[in-house]
Amino acid sequence: MHPTLVNGKPGDTIGVTDRGLQFGDGVFETIAVIDGRPRHWQLHMARLQRSLAKLKFHDRPDPDLLYHEAIGLCADQPRAVLKLIITRGDSQRGYAVPADAQCHRILRLTPWPEWVTPPVGGGVKATLCQTRLARQPALAGIKHLNRLEHVLARLEWDSEYAEGLMCDDHDLLIEGTMSNVFLIREGALHTPLLNHCGVEGVMREHVLETAQSQGIEVEIQPLHRLTLREFDEVFLTNSVIGIWPVQSVDEMQFPLGPITQQLQQAINR
Amino acid sequence: MHPTLVNGKPGDTIGVTDRGLQFGDGVFETIAVIDGRPRHWQLHMARLQRSLAKLKFHDRPDPDLLYHEAIGLCADQPRAVLKLIITRGDSQRGYAVPADAQCHRILRLTPWPEWVTPPVGGGVKATLCQTRLARQPALAGIKHLNRLEHVLARLEWDSEYAEGLMCDDHDLLIEGTMSNVFLIREGALHTPLLNHCGVEGVMREHVLETAQSQGIEVEIQPLHRLTLREFDEVFLTNSVIGIWPVQSVDEMQFPLGPITQQLQQAINR
Repeated sequence: MHPTLVNGKPGDTIGVTDRGLQFGDGVFETIAVIDGRPRHWQLHMARLQRSLAKLKFHDRPDPDLLYHEAIGLCADQPRAVLKLIITRGDSQRGYAVPADAQCHRILRLTPWPEWVTPPVGGGVKATLCQTRLARQPALAGIKHLNRLEHVLARLEWDSEYAEGLMCDDHDLLIEGTMSNVFLIREGALHTPLLNHCGVEGVMREHVLETAQSQGIEVEIQPLHRLTLREFDEVFLTNSVIGIWPVQSVDEMQFPLGPITQQLQQAINR
Repeated sequence: MHPTLVNGKPGDTIGVTDRGLQFGDGVFETIAVIDGRPRHWQLHMARLQRSLAKLKFHDRPDPDLLYHEAIGLCADQPRAVLKLIITRGDSQRGYAVPADAQCHRILRLTPWPEWVTPPVGGGVKATLCQTRLARQPALAGIKHLNRLEHVLARLEWDSEYAEGLMCDDHDLLIEGTMSNVFLIREGALHTPLLNHCGVEGVMREHVLETAQSQGIEVEIQPLHRLTLREFDEVFLTNSVIGIWPVQSVDEMQFPLGPITQQLQQAINR
């Protein structure tokens, strides 16, 4: 089967009038596919709807149709990654949304990446990026297509780190370029509040729910980057990597600790 | 001739792996075409180069090739609009830029829009938008493809206004959704400093140079939105509209004044 569906049809292109290209006017989801099924589909669809609502999309994709197309693409895939892009459709020119604009959907299956699994018993190396995230409540939390800040941050290193952590211009720690960040101190799980910037990842949500169901105390609040060294454990999450223990952020070292391992085991179940 | 060239070939589509679609990873120029020639080509190319440098593009389009393609598209066009998009090329997945990424170029000609000319002796009606611009020095000034803020601002009105003015989250007046803003007080021309957000338009640059050559005092500085009512004249600029006198911003009225008319005549020469 062709790995890409554009508006339901096998294909690899979109029109140059697509607002996703012209303005980044759209949203996306990156979904782990395991044993032929998109994982955490309902959480992804809930986040997609929140994103489309925040961007005031009038026309939205039919959830049943999306599911049908996703399942068709994922069938017979032991492991893969499904990227789903929804754009606001076409515009000839200018920001105004045509009254008859119909959203476009692109579903694309790519092979499971090799770099996902960190060494057994170890973690990944991270760095603090210089590129800052702008504070924009109108776009905070959602996974939209305006990702230049993350592209610029990712340009700061080559392969010496697995991930870069990003702060806003108030020196608050927000997220990784492609992940959410969790920190543990005295048995409590902390993660940044994402009301001004950052993406509320599906795996972040799943980890928060899992922690609460396991009786782990959870704190969601602003976290200054200078407090990073006060934490006992650090880990990163996204839908494909699951949980990545962090062994270092630049010169700061962190052990692979008990809460990280407990949550890893819980989400891998 | 086909109105769109994608990497030099007539066509209307790009690949779904294009980073312009995936991340808004690119820049654009909107150029007035008059009598078969792209107007202010050198200013547009200079801004394009500044934009690509700020986004750290390794591979950039050949300026001679761009000119050759633009001239070919524009030939025999009395009036039209040329939109030029440059993206960072393809990526299979993830923000990292492949070492061999080659930029993509899209040139697209559209008809001259009808709404460009305001009524003779009059101006346009504008409104102050609720949507704020985030402060992001890493992206300020350039015309990149991350335009969700402008899309959200443009959704605030239908056709009752010709343009919406946008402020940052410090209540500083920055720009229109598709234009730059100029204000005149006691014969001096003021326009907002764009070091934290906003697009440094080619027509803004041309108007600033024209004003200086005509001996008009020019001030580029932060402008609080509450000072708007203290100005005698207001106008908007972009490459297609040239100069639009503003007759009102919501309930505030402005006359069509002498400096605006002087600059209109100068740039239309």
